[in-house]
Amino acid sequence: MDEHEISKVVVKRLPRYYRYLGDLLEAKVERISSGELSELMNVTASQIRQDLNNFGGFGQQGYGYNVKYLYDEIGKILGLDKVYNMIIVGAGNLGQALANYVKFEKNGFLIKGLFDVKPELKGVSVRGIEIRMTDELPQFIRKHDIQIAALTLPKSGAEVIAPVLAENGVKAIWNFAHTDLHLPPTVVVENVHLSESLMHLSYNLNHMD
Amino acid sequence: MDEHEISKVVVKRLPRYYRYLGDLLEAKVERISSGELSELMNVTASQIRQDLNNFGGFGQQGYGYNVKYLYDEIGKILGLDKVYNMIIVGAGNLGQALANYVKFEKNGFLIKGLFDVKPELKGVSVRGIEIRMTDELPQFIRKHDIQIAALTLPKSGAEVIAPVLAENGVKAIWNFAHTDLHLPPTVVVENVHLSESLMHLSYNLNHMD
Repeated sequence: MDEHEISKVVVKRLPRYYRYLGDLLEAKVERISSGELSELMNVTASQIRQDLNNFGGFGQQGYGYNVKYLYDEIGKILGLDKVYNMIIVGAGNLGQALANYVKFEKNGFLIKGLFDVKPELKGVSVRGIEIRMTDELPQFIRKHDIQIAALTLPKSGAEVIAPVLAENGVKAIWNFAHTDLHLPPTVVVENVHLSESLMHLSYNLNHMD
Repeated sequence: MDEHEISKVVVKRLPRYYRYLGDLLEAKVERISSGELSELMNVTASQIRQDLNNFGGFGQQGYGYNVKYLYDEIGKILGLDKVYNMIIVGAGNLGQALANYVKFEKNGFLIKGLFDVKPELKGVSVRGIEIRMTDELPQFIRKHDIQIAALTLPKSGAEVIAPVLAENGVKAIWNFAHTDLHLPPTVVVENVHLSESLMHLSYNLNHMD
């Protein structure tokens, strides 16, 4: 199987498969047909078969998919069989919301540090993680082998901090700031632009058929 | 111009154009060529011309685009020339982060109420907005003509509350809960699944060329 041939569109859909398969596992479902999964996920059975065939075909004609096997394989493709050291830069409400979300840890994203620029936040603890000042970032990133940083700072702060993260070895940035970061191509950036999502909602609200 | 013919892919890109044009306006830039915009946004000039031609062509050959005009027109297409009454259901960190984000109000999304199920949050104020209990939702939605609800509750709560919102007249749900809501087709749902975004980041981190 050549993973590089999986199209971006299919990759985007994998986390949703992973979520549904996780729910099925919790409900102790062992096997599921593409038809049942189709009904549950509200996509066509043929799309499900096509998508999952990308990974060498986990399904057996007439027997359906083995839920646990499929869950684990998709998890591996998504890199969820590994553990990542992560920091959150920006300890406001959004940063604290991410720090409090325990499911990330369950998926292998370990939150090692929380950073901010506001002196009044120094030493405050969120879920046992002490907030540090951003001048400690370079040393902290190297010492704790941080691979991922969530950026929950305002735009101006994010643009200053992102290059510092990259220079010190951060390999992936989960960017919540309302700006497109300009970083070396060796750094992965995943944007969550909440304003843009709300505008998309507004468009759809105004263009319902 | 028939707006219904704009493809979903182009619509998804409009908020980003809107953001860049807003930045240009703030910087007092009056006109911009597709070439300059292309460099700024890191997309090809031909894609920009194609995308913007969807709206009847705001550009004049050789003169570039009028930034203010284009900004306003894209704003109208996105429905940002209107004002929306919005509530946030789930007043934890994430809900409070949304309530504190003033830029939403600037774009016409007025946060009228904040709701939770935890009695200890009753009466607490966030940016002057008092947290109410969810049993007040039906009356509040009708009285304040609420069109949009952000759902920042855990999955189980969201699945119970979403139909109540829809029954009482909410037309659009901005869903942050880790579940796909099952609602009548007359209700627009825009999902922000943070876990899935983080998994997508993890995939890319593991599949860099």
